[in-house]
Amino acid sequence: MSYHDPIPSYYKIKMSLLGKISSGEWPIGTRIPSELELSELYQTSRPTVRQAIMSLVHEGYLERVRGRGTFVKRPLITKNAEIFSTFAEDMAKEGIPHASLTVSKTTVHATEGLAAELGITEGDRVYEIVRIRIGSGERLVLRMSYIAEAMCPGLIEEDLDAKPLYEIIRRRTNVFPAAAVQKFRAIVASHTEATLLQIPVGSPLLEWKGIVYDSRETPVEKVRALYRGDKFEFTVTQGRRTADVEQIHVGLGILF
Amino acid sequence: MSYHDPIPSYYKIKMSLLGKISSGEWPIGTRIPSELELSELYQTSRPTVRQAIMSLVHEGYLERVRGRGTFVKRPLITKNAEIFSTFAEDMAKEGIPHASLTVSKTTVHATEGLAAELGITEGDRVYEIVRIRIGSGERLVLRMSYIAEAMCPGLIEEDLDAKPLYEIIRRRTNVFPAAAVQKFRAIVASHTEATLLQIPVGSPLLEWKGIVYDSRETPVEKVRALYRGDKFEFTVTQGRRTADVEQIHVGLGILF
Repeated sequence: MSYHDPIPSYYKIKMSLLGKISSGEWPIGTRIPSELELSELYQTSRPTVRQAIMSLVHEGYLERVRGRGTFVKRPLITKNAEIFSTFAEDMAKEGIPHASLTVSKTTVHATEGLAAELGITEGDRVYEIVRIRIGSGERLVLRMSYIAEAMCPGLIEEDLDAKPLYEIIRRRTNVFPAAAVQKFRAIVASHTEATLLQIPVGSPLLEWKGIVYDSRETPVEKVRALYRGDKFEFTVTQGRRTADVEQIHVGLGILF
Repeated sequence: MSYHDPIPSYYKIKMSLLGKISSGEWPIGTRIPSELELSELYQTSRPTVRQAIMSLVHEGYLERVRGRGTFVKRPLITKNAEIFSTFAEDMAKEGIPHASLTVSKTTVHATEGLAAELGITEGDRVYEIVRIRIGSGERLVLRMSYIAEAMCPGLIEEDLDAKPLYEIIRRRTNVFPAAAVQKFRAIVASHTEATLLQIPVGSPLLEWKGIVYDSRETPVEKVRALYRGDKFEFTVTQGRRTADVEQIHVGLGILF
């Protein structure tokens, strides 16, 4: 361990490359110079250049395409996890053309757990809707949705790819989703998920599980959505409750 | 597509197994009956039983140990992403004994980006602290931290595994972290990350990037923490701003 290490050379190169990306000198899609060209440019070894590139690949700024080279990637789509927004709204904000592809829509009977989450009775009929959300022609999100039939009878007879789901629900019922309790987790794509999203098995996915409520706090929908890990990041601002700060000041001596 | 499908048999078995787990009939660590035993119990085929088990493995309720059987897993550790809390607090809340292992602590010079995030000048000295957070003897989180030397001179000369980092900072400076702006993303473990966390390369990780502020909104720390995807989930409650609801009602016809 050293306290006064200089910055490692790979890190300086990484920061220089990152500067070219973030300044726009190398826009999205640019094929960056080869390792050999960069090692001459920075007067350093190829392994050092490779380390800088691989670090930027791992962090999602660059992507290597076998046999073609290394390219500047589109930055992650940022989604504010604290504000309720639909996929269509998120894409519109980013200026990305979007679409929806229904994989299946069926009616199932609510299990005890699902009934509790949707505020209905076990055995009640529930629509199960599986859709793929597409941005710029790429499959980005796999979305599984459960909606009580009684909440919106006939919903699955509609063409769910022609209009936003919530717009259809609002038109039929005057219910408008307004809030959600949600959980995030990192998983890797199973065979089925990978096939549906057209990504390799084992790719990172952000699993978003939520119960969506209307403005009167009635459950509208239970959702499990899988966001491609290489395409999305979620933002949250967190605070500490004032009471907690006190408690922790006091508790420190005991807890730790 | 069928609108009135009965519940598939694997799903009924899955829900029955889940009932035994959540009721506590099968506590954490229980080795569940074999596929053969379950197929006799439920009077169904082994592939159907296997589908139910694999679905619960994929969702994190069960784990298969090669040559030993299938076991009930500890449920995910739930972390509220909206409340600022330390790893030690999170573990104490779950009743999990915890520890910290410092991997490296060095001084680096702030790059332009890091300087902007920490509110210091490019080239200023910054402590880089890499630690592993341990719960019940397992490596759960890899945490990389950047703290301006001027904010807390001498910090890295302390034993950072003996006391919580924020307690040391508070004692030395009277600064207490109170809020963070954070980003979540799903990634898979690189070789280095997998080695440090003692997990297979390619395991899912939830990447948490944050800037931590004190109560006067001065940046204290920049953090990149990698949480094991099979151990943690994060919760957030989201609402829609009232103004947005209006805007979306109006905008629906234009946007979609």
